[in-house]
Amino acid sequence: MNSKLVFNTLGKVILIEVLFMLLPLLIAIGYRESSVISFVITIAIASIAGGALVLFCKPKEKNTFLKDGTAIVVLSWIVMSIIGCLPFVISGEIPNFFDAFFETVSGFTTTGASIVPNVEVMSHGILFWRSLTHWLGGMGVLVFVLAVSSKGQNKTMNILKAEMPGPSVEKISPKAATTARILYTIYLALTFTEVAFLLFGGMPLFEAFVHAFGTAGTGGFGVKADSIGGYSSYLQWVITIFMLLFGVSFNFYFLLLLKNFKAFLKCNELWLYTGVFLVASVLIGFNIYPLYNSVADSARLSCFQVASIVTTTGFATADFNVWPQLSRSILLLLMFLGGCAGSTAGGLKMSRVVILCQSVKNEIRRNVRPRSVTNVKLNGKNIDESMERSVISYFAIYVIIHIVITLLISFEPFDFETNFTAVVSCINNIGPGLSQVGPASNFAGYTAFSKCLLSIAMLMGRLEIYPLLMVVYPEFWSKRSR
Amino acid sequence: MNSKLVFNTLGKVILIEVLFMLLPLLIAIGYRESSVISFVITIAIASIAGGALVLFCKPKEKNTFLKDGTAIVVLSWIVMSIIGCLPFVISGEIPNFFDAFFETVSGFTTTGASIVPNVEVMSHGILFWRSLTHWLGGMGVLVFVLAVSSKGQNKTMNILKAEMPGPSVEKISPKAATTARILYTIYLALTFTEVAFLLFGGMPLFEAFVHAFGTAGTGGFGVKADSIGGYSSYLQWVITIFMLLFGVSFNFYFLLLLKNFKAFLKCNELWLYTGVFLVASVLIGFNIYPLYNSVADSARLSCFQVASIVTTTGFATADFNVWPQLSRSILLLLMFLGGCAGSTAGGLKMSRVVILCQSVKNEIRRNVRPRSVTNVKLNGKNIDESMERSVISYFAIYVIIHIVITLLISFEPFDFETNFTAVVSCINNIGPGLSQVGPASNFAGYTAFSKCLLSIAMLMGRLEIYPLLMVVYPEFWSKRSR
Repeated sequence: MNSKLVFNTLGKVILIEVLFMLLPLLIAIGYRESSVISFVITIAIASIAGGALVLFCKPKEKNTFLKDGTAIVVLSWIVMSIIGCLPFVISGEIPNFFDAFFETVSGFTTTGASIVPNVEVMSHGILFWRSLTHWLGGMGVLVFVLAVSSKGQNKTMNILKAEMPGPSVEKISPKAATTARILYTIYLALTFTEVAFLLFGGMPLFEAFVHAFGTAGTGGFGVKADSIGGYSSYLQWVITIFMLLFGVSFNFYFLLLLKNFKAFLKCNELWLYTGVFLVASVLIGFNIYPLYNSVADSARLSCFQVASIVTTTGFATADFNVWPQLSRSILLLLMFLGGCAGSTAGGLKMSRVVILCQSVKNEIRRNVRPRSVTNVKLNGKNIDESMERSVISYFAIYVIIHIVITLLISFEPFDFETNFTAVVSCINNIGPGLSQVGPASNFAGYTAFSKCLLSIAMLMGRLEIYPLLMVVYPEFWSKRSR
Repeated sequence: MNSKLVFNTLGKVILIEVLFMLLPLLIAIGYRESSVISFVITIAIASIAGGALVLFCKPKEKNTFLKDGTAIVVLSWIVMSIIGCLPFVISGEIPNFFDAFFETVSGFTTTGASIVPNVEVMSHGILFWRSLTHWLGGMGVLVFVLAVSSKGQNKTMNILKAEMPGPSVEKISPKAATTARILYTIYLALTFTEVAFLLFGGMPLFEAFVHAFGTAGTGGFGVKADSIGGYSSYLQWVITIFMLLFGVSFNFYFLLLLKNFKAFLKCNELWLYTGVFLVASVLIGFNIYPLYNSVADSARLSCFQVASIVTTTGFATADFNVWPQLSRSILLLLMFLGGCAGSTAGGLKMSRVVILCQSVKNEIRRNVRPRSVTNVKLNGKNIDESMERSVISYFAIYVIIHIVITLLISFEPFDFETNFTAVVSCINNIGPGLSQVGPASNFAGYTAFSKCLLSIAMLMGRLEIYPLLMVVYPEFWSKRSR
C-alpha cells in the first residue's frame, strides 16, 4: 500500500470539498443566514486537515495500483461525508450526528433518502449544500480531483475505475485526467442547460440550481415538501427529460460529439434503457388512469415517476405508494435496474442487465445444445468470459447484500415492505421506497444503528460493493500483496 | 429427440401413478366413502392411457440423452399432475379444475400450498391421496420408475439428473437403477420409522401415515385446520426431528450405512445446514420468548417452524405471520436456502449456498489479489470452474424468476408481501408464505391465471428451473441438435 499517496490524495479531496463549500457559504451570506458560521467553522477545520495531509504526505511513487485506488476511494467517501455533515450539525438544522451523516451520505451517493421531516424550514445555505453534494457525488469527487490535477499522471485510471459506476470504464482518452476533464465538461454543460430550461419555465434561480443539481447527480433532494409535485407541467416535463438524459452514459454523449453515430446506434444498453422507460411508462399510465381520469395527467405522472426511479433520482410528483399494486411492483423492479453504466445513476446498471440477460439465455442454450458457441455483446463489442463471469458474480453479491442488510434492520418495528424497500432504495441510490419510506414519508423513524447500516448500503451502492468489501478483507492490508 | 422412448416412459409413469392410486382407493373403500367412484374412474382412464403408451411406443434405442431426459421429466410431471387432480374434481371435493390442478402440483412438488378452505371436511381417501402425492413427488416418480425397471439400463442417469434436486447427482452406484433402488429403500425405511414414532405418541394410524408422507416428501399437507398445532409436544418434536432428517442428503445416509464416517464429517453442506438450523432457532426462540413466556414453548415452536421452513416442508404449529418482524424476516430468508441437495427438500439447496458463498469470497479475494489461486470445496471435493459458474448462473436465473413471477401476479389485489412471499413459497416448495398467504390462510383468493402461474413456479422449483425453460426454448425441438 502506498499510504503516502493515499493520504495525499485524501487531502486533495478535502480541499476540493472546501472549495465547493464556498458556494453555500456565499449563498448563506447573501441570504444573511445564521448558517454562515457553520460553514466557516467547517471550512476552517477541513482546510487545516486537508492542507496538512497534502503538505506532509508527499508520495515518492505516483502510480496507483488497484489496492491504492480502492483505499483512496473508500477513505475519501467516508471522510468527505463526515466533513460534509458538519454544517448540518453545527448549524443545528440537523443536530443529531447520525442523522446528519445519513443525510450527507445520501447526498454524496446521490440517493436522496432523507431524515428531514420538513425541508421547507431549512435555510438556503444548508439546502444549497445538501443539493450540491448530489452534483459532486454524481460524477465523483475523485474524478474531479483527477480533472483538475495539472500533471499528466497516466497511471491513475485505477482511481477512475473504482469510483466510476458500471462494469467497465470505457476509456474516452488513454489519460485518466483527460477523460475526467471531458466527463466534467459534459456534466457541467448539461447541468447549465437544465438550469436555463427551468428558469425559462419561471422557476426561481435558487430553486433552478438546486433541482438541476438533484437531477444531474440523479440524487433527488428538493426544497419542497411535495418534491416536484407543486411545479407546472412544463417544469415537470423538463425535469423528466433531464433525468433521463443524466441516466445515459456520458460516453454516448462523447460518441455524439465525435459524430460517431454508427457506434452510438449499436449501444444495446441505450436501447434497453429506452425500451424499459417506454414500456414501464405505458403500463403504469394505463394502470393509474382510473385514478386521474386524464390522459395528460396519467402520462405526465407515469413518465415522471418512471424516469425518476429508473434513473435512481427519486424526485416525485405523486405519492406512488398509494398507486395500484401493479404500478408499485413495476416501480420496485425498476429500482433494481438503474440507469446506464457511466452515467450518474445508481442501481445494477443497464449494461449489467444486458450482459446478465444474454448470459442467462446462453446458459439455457448450453443446456439444450452443450457444444454451442455463445457470446455476449455489449454496445457492439464482444464481452470476454471473465467479464461475463464477474457480472454474474456481481449480481449474486448484490442480491446477497440486499438480503443481509434487510435482515439486519428487520428488528425495526416496520413491516417487511418498508424495511425491504428502504434497503433497495439505499443500495440502488434511489431515495424513496414504498410503504413507510414512500415518497410522502422519510427515514427519520429508523434507529441510529439502522441509519449507519443504511449509510453503508448507500456507499456500497454508489461504489459498487467491492471496494467496501475489499477493505474489510484482512488480506487487503497485508504487505505481501499488491 | 427419441420420442418413442419419451412416450414409453410417460406411459410407465402413468401406470406407476395408477399403482399408487390403489392405496387411497382402498382407504376410501375401507371408510365407505363416496370418493371411491372418483378413484375408480381416474384409474380406468389412466390405465388405458398409460397402457396404450407403453404398448404402442416401443423405443428401438434405449439410451437417453440429456434432451430426452428433460422432455420425459417435464411431460411426466405435467401429465401426472393432470391425472392426479382428477379424483379431486370428479369427487367434487375440489370441483374447479384449476384449483385441483394447483393442489395436485402443490402435492407432487412437495410444496404444500393449498386452496382448500377447510381441510377437515374432506374424505379420508382424498386426504390420503393428497398426502401421498408428497411422498411420491418427494423422491420423484421417475426415480421410482427407474427403481422398478428390471433391466439394467446404464444410460438413464440423465433422467435421474433432471429429476433429482441439487447441482450434481452423486452417483451412489454407477447404475441409475441401483442408485434409485437404494434411494427408495432409505426413503421407505425412514418413512416407516417416523410412522412408528408417531403411533407410539398416540397418533391414529391414518394421521400417522398422512403426516409421515408430508414430512418425508417435505411437503406439508396435513389433515387439521391448525396443521400440527393441536398435537402433543412429543409428536411435534418427533415431526421436527424427522423434517430435519428428510432435509439431509440421502447420500449422507448411504455414507453412514457404509460406515464411511470420514467422508461424512467432511460434508460442509451438512455443517451449514445444522448451523443454520441452530442459529435461526436460537434467534427466533429469543425473539418470540416475550409472546409465550415459557422456554419450553418458545424452543419447541421456534425449532419446529425453523425446521419446517428450512426443509421447505411447510407444517406449522404457530401462526408465524403474527410473530415479530425479525422472526418473520429470518423465516423468509430460510425459505430461499432450502435443505441439502439430494434430499426431498426444495429451495436453493445448501450445497449451492456453500458454493455461492465461497465463490463470492473468492471474487473479493481476486479483487484484492488478482493472481491468487482460489478453489471452491463441496463436501471435501474441489468444484471445477464450470460447475461453479453454473451454480452462480443458476442463482441469477433463480432470482430473476422470482422477480418476473412476482411482477406477473402483482395485478392481484394483494399487498406486495403477500404476492412476493406467495411466489417465494411456491418456487421454493415451502407451502405457507407471509401476510395473506401465511400459515393461517391459503391461496384460494388468487385468480385461475395466477394459480396456473404459481403452479408453473412450483414445478420450476421442484425441477430446478432449467428443464421448464429448456422445453420452451425453440431450438430444443429442432432435429439438428441432440
